[in-house]
Amino acid sequence: MSEYFPEIDEITYEGPDSQDPLSFSYYDPEKQVGEKTMAEHLRFSVAYWHTLREDGSDPFGAGTMQRPWDDIDDPMEKAHARVDAAFEFFEKLGVPYFCFHDRDIAPKGEDLAESNENLDEIVDHVEEKIDETGVELLWGTAQLFMEPKFAHGAATSPNPDVFAHAAGQVKKAMEVTERLGGENFVFWGGREGYKTLLNSDMGRELDNMGRFFRMAADYADDIGFDGQLLIEPKPKEPTKHQYDFDAANVMAFLREYGLEDRFNLNLEANHATLAGHTFRHELQYARVNDALGSVDANQGDKLIGWDTDEFPTDVYMTTLAMYEVLENDGIAPGGLNFDAKVRRESFEPVDLFYGHVVGMDTFARGLEVAHELREDGVFADVIDDRYGYDAGIGAEIAAESTDFEALAEYALENDGIELESGRQEKLKAVLNSYILES
Amino acid sequence: MSEYFPEIDEITYEGPDSQDPLSFSYYDPEKQVGEKTMAEHLRFSVAYWHTLREDGSDPFGAGTMQRPWDDIDDPMEKAHARVDAAFEFFEKLGVPYFCFHDRDIAPKGEDLAESNENLDEIVDHVEEKIDETGVELLWGTAQLFMEPKFAHGAATSPNPDVFAHAAGQVKKAMEVTERLGGENFVFWGGREGYKTLLNSDMGRELDNMGRFFRMAADYADDIGFDGQLLIEPKPKEPTKHQYDFDAANVMAFLREYGLEDRFNLNLEANHATLAGHTFRHELQYARVNDALGSVDANQGDKLIGWDTDEFPTDVYMTTLAMYEVLENDGIAPGGLNFDAKVRRESFEPVDLFYGHVVGMDTFARGLEVAHELREDGVFADVIDDRYGYDAGIGAEIAAESTDFEALAEYALENDGIELESGRQEKLKAVLNSYILES
Amino acid sequence: MSEYFPEIDEITYEGPDSQDPLSFSYYDPEKQVGEKTMAEHLRFSVAYWHTLREDGSDPFGAGTMQRPWDDIDDPMEKAHARVDAAFEFFEKLGVPYFCFHDRDIAPKGEDLAESNENLDEIVDHVEEKIDETGVELLWGTAQLFMEPKFAHGAATSPNPDVFAHAAGQVKKAMEVTERLGGENFVFWGGREGYKTLLNSDMGRELDNMGRFFRMAADYADDIGFDGQLLIEPKPKEPTKHQYDFDAANVMAFLREYGLEDRFNLNLEANHATLAGHTFRHELQYARVNDALGSVDANQGDKLIGWDTDEFPTDVYMTTLAMYEVLENDGIAPGGLNFDAKVRRESFEPVDLFYGHVVGMDTFARGLEVAHELREDGVFADVIDDRYGYDAGIGAEIAAESTDFEALAEYALENDGIELESGRQEKLKAVLNSYILES
Amino acid sequence: MSEYFPEIDEITYEGPDSQDPLSFSYYDPEKQVGEKTMAEHLRFSVAYWHTLREDGSDPFGAGTMQRPWDDIDDPMEKAHARVDAAFEFFEKLGVPYFCFHDRDIAPKGEDLAESNENLDEIVDHVEEKIDETGVELLWGTAQLFMEPKFAHGAATSPNPDVFAHAAGQVKKAMEVTERLGGENFVFWGGREGYKTLLNSDMGRELDNMGRFFRMAADYADDIGFDGQLLIEPKPKEPTKHQYDFDAANVMAFLREYGLEDRFNLNLEANHATLAGHTFRHELQYARVNDALGSVDANQGDKLIGWDTDEFPTDVYMTTLAMYEVLENDGIAPGGLNFDAKVRRESFEPVDLFYGHVVGMDTFARGLEVAHELREDGVFADVIDDRYGYDAGIGAEIAAESTDFEALAEYALENDGIELESGRQEKLKAVLNSYILES
Ligand SMILES: [Co+2]
Ligand SMILES: [Co+2]
Ligand SMILES: [Co+2]
Ligand SMILES: [Co+2]
Ligand SMILES: [Co+2]
Ligand SMILES: [Co+2]
Ligand SMILES: [Co+2]
Ligand SMILES: [Co+2]
Repeated sequence: MSEYFPEIDEITYEGPDSQDPLSFSYYDPEKQVGEKTMAEHLRFSVAYWHTLREDGSDPFGAGTMQRPWDDIDDPMEKAHARVDAAFEFFEKLGVPYFCFHDRDIAPKGEDLAESNENLDEIVDHVEEKIDETGVELLWGTAQLFMEPKFAHGAATSPNPDVFAHAAGQVKKAMEVTERLGGENFVFWGGREGYKTLLNSDMGRELDNMGRFFRMAADYADDIGFDGQLLIEPKPKEPTKHQYDFDAANVMAFLREYGLEDRFNLNLEANHATLAGHTFRHELQYARVNDALGSVDANQGDKLIGWDTDEFPTDVYMTTLAMYEVLENDGIAPGGLNFDAKVRRESFEPVDLFYGHVVGMDTFARGLEVAHELREDGVFADVIDDRYGYDAGIGAEIAAESTDFEALAEYALENDGIELESGRQEKLKAVLNSYILES
Repeated sequence: MSEYFPEIDEITYEGPDSQDPLSFSYYDPEKQVGEKTMAEHLRFSVAYWHTLREDGSDPFGAGTMQRPWDDIDDPMEKAHARVDAAFEFFEKLGVPYFCFHDRDIAPKGEDLAESNENLDEIVDHVEEKIDETGVELLWGTAQLFMEPKFAHGAATSPNPDVFAHAAGQVKKAMEVTERLGGENFVFWGGREGYKTLLNSDMGRELDNMGRFFRMAADYADDIGFDGQLLIEPKPKEPTKHQYDFDAANVMAFLREYGLEDRFNLNLEANHATLAGHTFRHELQYARVNDALGSVDANQGDKLIGWDTDEFPTDVYMTTLAMYEVLENDGIAPGGLNFDAKVRRESFEPVDLFYGHVVGMDTFARGLEVAHELREDGVFADVIDDRYGYDAGIGAEIAAESTDFEALAEYALENDGIELESGRQEKLKAVLNSYILES
Repeated sequence: MSEYFPEIDEITYEGPDSQDPLSFSYYDPEKQVGEKTMAEHLRFSVAYWHTLREDGSDPFGAGTMQRPWDDIDDPMEKAHARVDAAFEFFEKLGVPYFCFHDRDIAPKGEDLAESNENLDEIVDHVEEKIDETGVELLWGTAQLFMEPKFAHGAATSPNPDVFAHAAGQVKKAMEVTERLGGENFVFWGGREGYKTLLNSDMGRELDNMGRFFRMAADYADDIGFDGQLLIEPKPKEPTKHQYDFDAANVMAFLREYGLEDRFNLNLEANHATLAGHTFRHELQYARVNDALGSVDANQGDKLIGWDTDEFPTDVYMTTLAMYEVLENDGIAPGGLNFDAKVRRESFEPVDLFYGHVVGMDTFARGLEVAHELREDGVFADVIDDRYGYDAGIGAEIAAESTDFEALAEYALENDGIELESGRQEKLKAVLNSYILES
Repeated sequence: MSEYFPEIDEITYEGPDSQDPLSFSYYDPEKQVGEKTMAEHLRFSVAYWHTLREDGSDPFGAGTMQRPWDDIDDPMEKAHARVDAAFEFFEKLGVPYFCFHDRDIAPKGEDLAESNENLDEIVDHVEEKIDETGVELLWGTAQLFMEPKFAHGAATSPNPDVFAHAAGQVKKAMEVTERLGGENFVFWGGREGYKTLLNSDMGRELDNMGRFFRMAADYADDIGFDGQLLIEPKPKEPTKHQYDFDAANVMAFLREYGLEDRFNLNLEANHATLAGHTFRHELQYARVNDALGSVDANQGDKLIGWDTDEFPTDVYMTTLAMYEVLENDGIAPGGLNFDAKVRRESFEPVDLFYGHVVGMDTFARGLEVAHELREDGVFADVIDDRYGYDAGIGAEIAAESTDFEALAEYALENDGIELESGRQEKLKAVLNSYILES
C-alpha cells in the first residue's frame, strides 16, 4: 500500500521550546492532567469531510486543494484511497478518533440502493483500518443537505418522499455507525429550516422533525445502538434560518416533543458565535441543562457573517471551553472533533497537519490552564463568595420554602442593599496570568 | 385641569388622501375587517415609559425632550401631572390601552415602603382617569433594572436581598395591575443575564429565575389575578447576554421549570432582530408553540447593534406581523403596545403624536393587507399545495404509523424524487402587489 | 434556431391590476416620467453570470438549476446555446442591456491564448445577436477570482505572474467590451484583499493595485475606449477583507493614486449593507463625491452575513435609490444591472422571469414614487428650511469668509441656540403615504 | 490636601509571578525593549472622561460608581477635587500622560463665557499639577456631543449658530491644550453624521465639516500649536451613521478637502471592530497611508453591537497592535490612551486600578511579543519570501516600466502559474508560540 503523506513523519510531542512546526508543543497524549491523561480528556477527532474531502472551492472560486489521490479517476477506487490516506493521517497525527458522513466516505450511487452498496464496500475497508490501527469512530452521521432533493429540507421537506429518503439514509448510517463501534450519532439539520416563511409552515415542519427524531431514537433502540444521539445547532447557513438555531432552541424542541432524555447536543464554536453567543455560553448552557454531549472544535471570525470553520487557535477560547468540559466531568462519550478546514489558500497536504497540530496544541494548552484554574479554585472561590443562597433568606429561596408575601415583608424591612463589585477587570487579569504563566 | 397638548386636537381618521399629518390615513377604529373592527384587531397601547418619561438622553448626550410638565419640581406633583397628560394623550390619539412599569408612574421613595406609598397615591389617580376615559390597562410590570441594586440582576442576583426586593416590587406591581383591571402582567428581565461568565453561575441563576416565576404565578393565583403572565425576550442589552434571549430560549426555560402553562410571550420586533430573527419568525414560533401572548410594536435598524425602539413604519413588517396575529385568531388578551420612542432629535410634544400616528397607520394598513391575503388564500393555497402529508406515505408519517424500516423500504423503491420550485421571487411580487394595491 | 423558453411569451406591461404574474404591473418602458421614459431612467441590465451561468450550488449543496442547455456537453457548443438563450431572455423580458465577465460567455481554455480564442469566437456570436436584437452591452468585466491562480489576489497577488495574467485578461476583456460597444468597464476585486494580515503587506498590495488601475486606464486610452471605468466596492467575501471595502474606501484609494478623474463607482445594494451602510448612503456618498457611475440592483438580507444577491423587492429601498439617481440627473452611461440570482430552491427557468419581473417592477414603482416626491418638493423643502447657511453667519461660513476668532466672538454673543425638531417620524409617514398612495 | 485613594499604594512592577493584583506583571517602565524603554514605546495615557467622570449609568440603569468626591456638592469645588484625585491616580498608576475634553475637567456654565471662565480656573489647577507631578497632557479635545444644542451635529449642524458655538469651543480647547503643553488635539465627531437621510444633505454637511477642519488647522497655526491634529473615526453611535466611519473614510475626506497633510488619525480598537475591521487592519491601513497618529487603547465585544470601551485584555490584539506601532517606528507624538471604562458592576475605586493595570500589562506583554517577532524576523521573512516584485516582470511592475500590452504578452507565454501556500495555520501556531513562550 502506498504512502500518501511520505514527507510527513509521525507528529510527536517536543514541548513548548520545539522549533519543529510539525511537532506538538503542548499536546502530550500520555501527560497526566488531574485524574486523566491529556488524550483521555481531549478525545480528539478528525472530520473526514474537511480533511479528506474539502477541495477548497468557495462561492467565488474553484477548488485549490492538492491531494495525493487527485489523479485517481474511478470514484470507488478514489474512495478506497482516501480511506487509506485517512488512517495514515490519523496515525501520523496521533488522534484516537474520526467522524464521517455517509457520503464522505463512499460516493453516492445512481439510487439509494447503489449508494448503500457503495457504502457497505467502503465500510468494510474502514472496519479493517479501525482494527488495524486502533483509531476509533467518534461519530457517524448522514449527509442530508448536499443533494438537490434536500433543497427544501430533509425531515422538514414538504415532500414526504424526501422525508422517507432521509429516513432511509439515517437508518443505513446508523447501522454503519453501530457496526464500526461509533460512540455517538449526530444530526446536523443543514436544510432543516426555511429560505422564506412565505411558503413555509413552521408548525408542520417542526412536528415532522419531531417525528423524524422519535423514529430515529426508536430505530437506535431496535438495532441496539446505545451511543449518544446528538443534535448540532446552527442558526443559519445554508438556510436563512435553521430550526436548530442554538442550544436553547434545541432544548425547547426536545422538551416539546419529549425527546430530551434520548438526545444531547453537539456544540460547535463557530455556530455559537454565528448565533450571537460565546462558545463558552453554549457549552455552559448545555452543561447546566444536562445536555452537553460533544464538541465540534473549531473557531469562527466574529467579523465575518458565515461559517468559516477555522482550526482553533485562540487560547482564551480553548481555555474556557475546556473549563466547561472539566466542570462537566469530561466530554465522553463525546469528544473534540475538528470540524475545521484549512484555508483555501493553504492548499498543500502539509497544511492539513499544520491545522490539526495548532488546533490540538491550543486545546491542550487550554486544558492545562483550565485545570490549573480549577485546581487553584480561582473562579470557584469567587463564585462561592458571590452567591448568598446558603443561609438566611437566600437559603429559604433556594429551598423554595418562601413566597412573595414573606419576601415582600423581608424586603420592606431590609432595604439598605449593598452589592459587591463584579471585579470583571481583575478576573480578566487573573485569566491572562494563568494563560501566560501557569 | 390644564390641557397639556393644547395645540393638538383629537386625531381622526381622514383616509389615505388626507393632507393633515395629524390624522389617520388607515386607522379607522370602527372599520370592519373580517369579523372584528380595526380597534378590536389591533388593541393599540401606549407605553408610559417612552411617551411620558423618555427624556432623550443617550450614552453620549443629555436629555432633549420638551415636555409640558418640565417646569414642575415636586416629584409627586409632576407624577400627577404626567397622569393627566397621559390620559389626555391617550384620548386625543384614540388608543384603548396603555402599559406601565411601577416606577414610570410614581417616583421611587427613600425605601420600598415609601415607593409603595407613592405608587398607591398615583394609582388612585390613574384609576380615576381609567374610569373617566375608558382607556384601559393592557399590562403592568415592575421596573427591575434601573436602580443600582439591580446591577447584578434581580431574580438572578447573587444577593438574595435583591431577589427579595424584586419579589416585593413584583408583588406590589401585580396587585396594582389587578386593581386597575390590567389584562396582562409582563416580565422583562433587563438585568437577568450576565456581564461575564467569569464570575457567574448560570445554573444557579436559572434555577433562581425559575423559582421567582413560580412564586409570581402562585401569587397571581393568591390574589385572583387571572390575566396573562408574559415574558419578554431580548438577547442582550443592557447585559452582555440575557437569559431570555429569544422566544425559543424562553420556551426551553418554561418547559424546564414546568411553567409553560402559566406563561406566554410578549414579543418585541426590535428584540427579534437583535437576536437574529425576523419579527415574523418570532411571532410564528410563538404561535405554533401556543405561546403568542402580546406584542411590543416597534421596529429596529438592522444595521445598528442596539435597541433603537423606533415607531413601526415598515409596512412589510406590519403586514407579516398582522398575518401571524390573524393566524393566531387574534392577540387578545394581549395587544399591540408601542414600545417605541421618538428620536432624540424629535423633541417636541407634537412628535409624540407623529410617532404614534405613523405606527398606528402602518399597522392598520398591515392589517388590511394581511386580511386580504388571507381572504384570497394567497399563501394558504401555496402552502396547502406544497405539503404532501395528506395522503400516501406522507399521511403515514403525519399519523406516526410508520417507522424507519418501512420508510427505508419505501425510499429504496421511490428514488426519483422531483421537487417543485419554492417560487420565492413570485411570492414576493404577490406580496408587493397586495401591499401596494389591495 | 431553437427556442429556449418556449413556455414564456414576451413580458408586457399590464398595469397594477394585472393578474398575470408574467406581466409588468409598473414597468412600462415608454411611460414618461418627467423628462424621460421609464426605460431611459432605469436602463435595466441582465447579469449574464447569474442568469445564464448560476447553477444553484452553495457551500453545502450541489447545483439545482434546470436549464434548457443542460444536456449539451461540448463547452463551446453550450456557450453558443447560452448566447442564443440569453438574447431570447433579454428580448422576452424587454431589457435594453446586459453585462458579462469574460469567463461567463466563453469557457476558459487550456491557457490564456486558448481562452482568448474561445472568447473571440463567442464574441462574434454575441455581436451578431446585439446587431439583430438591439440589446446592448452595459458593461464588460474580467473574472479575476474563480481560478486557483487568483487564490492570493489578482493585481494584489504576491506572485507577479498573476498580476501579468490579470493584466492580460483585463486587456482582452476591455478590447471585447469596446468591440461590442460596451458603455462601461467594471472592476470587482473579488480576491483583492487578504485572508490574514500575518502573511500580507497591505502597503505593497495597495501600490500594486494602484499600478494596475493606472495601466488599465492607460490601455483604455490606447484603444480609444472612452466608456466609464468603474470600481465595485465590497467589504469582504470571498476574502476576509477586501481593499475596496466601500465607496469611501475606494475614493480614498483613487485619490491617493491620482485615479479619481478616470474611475467612478459601481455600487451594489447588498455590498452596501454588508459594509454597514444603507444602499442610499452609498449612492448619496458617491453622488456628492461626483463618482456615482452605475448600480448593481439587488438586495441583501440584513440578518444574514453573506452576499445573498436577491432580486430587489423592497419598494422602500428602490424608492430611495431612485431618489438618488434622479438627484444625480440620471445614472447614464451606467445603468441598473440585476446582479441578482434566483434562490437555489427556485430552480425552474420561469423563476428567472419572475425574479427579473419583480425586480423591474419594484424599481419602476420606486422611480414613480421618487419622481413624485421630487415633483412635490417633499424632502427638498424640508432640507431647504432646515439649513441656515444662506444668510448671516451661516453665509459667511459657507463662503469661507470667517474664522474661529470671529466665530467664537459670535458664539459668545449668541448663546441661546434653539434647534428645530428633526421630524423623522413625520417624514417616514410622508414616505409611506407616497409609496402606498402616489 | 486629602488623599482620594488612600487604600492604594503606588503600583509597581513585580514581574509575572507576582501574586499582588495591584502590581504590574509585565509593565516595567524602565525596561529596555530594543532602542527604547517600555514607557517610551507605550506612552500610556488615562482618559479623564472615563476614569474621573464615568458614573456607571447606561440606557437602562442609573449610575453605580462610588467615587471619593461624590459628597461634594458645589460643581467647581467638585471639579477641583477631581483634578487632585486624577493626578493622585496618574501618579499611583505611574502613567506619563492623560487626555481630556473641555467639559470633563470643568463644568459647563450658563453660557459659553461662563464655561470658558470655569475652564480657565480649572486649567490653572491642572497646570499646577502637571508642573508638580510631571504627568503630561497627551491630548485635549472639545466635547461637541453632549449638550442638546449638538443634537443635529456640531460642524455639520443645519444651524450655523451651532457651527459657531462648536468653533468657539474648539478654539478655547485648543488654546488650553497649547497652554498645558498638549502634544496632540483630537476631533471625535460624535454627532457629525445623521439619524436619517430623509432630512439631511450629506454633501452640504461634508463641505461644512471640511470648512471647520480647515479653520481649526488655521487657528492652530495662528496660536502656534504645532501638535498633531487627529481625527478619530467611529462608524455609528450615537448617530445612525457618522461621517468619520473608519480610517479609509476619513482619508477620503481629508484628501477631498486638502487636509491630509495637517491631520492624522486617532484609532480606537472598539471603533475598528464596530466598523467591521480588526484593530490591526485600521492601524496598518493608517500606517501605510502615513496617517497613524495615536491610539485609543481599548477593546470591544464583537458579539455586541455598541461601543463597550472595555480595558484591553486580549494579548493577541495588543501584540498585533504593538507590531504595527513598531513597524510605524513608534506612536509618538501620539500615545496609547485608555479610552476604556470599568464595567457598570465594577463600581469601587479600586476597580479603576484593576482596569488600568490589566490594560497596561496586556499592552506591555504585547510589546514584548511583537518586539521578539520582529527581532526574529518571523513575519518579515515570510512576507519577503512571498512577494516576487524584486526581479523580472515583478520588478518592472514595481518600477512602473511596463504596460498591459507587455504584460499580456508575458502572460501568454507564462501560463503555468504555481502559487505557494499562504500557510495561515502554521503562522497562527507561530504567533501562539511567541505569545505563550517568548
Ligand atoms: Co459542526
Ligand atoms: Co461550522
Ligand atoms: Co419591549
Ligand atoms: Co426594545
Ligand atoms: Co455586484
Ligand atoms: Co453581491
Ligand atoms: Co475613543
Ligand atoms: Co469607544
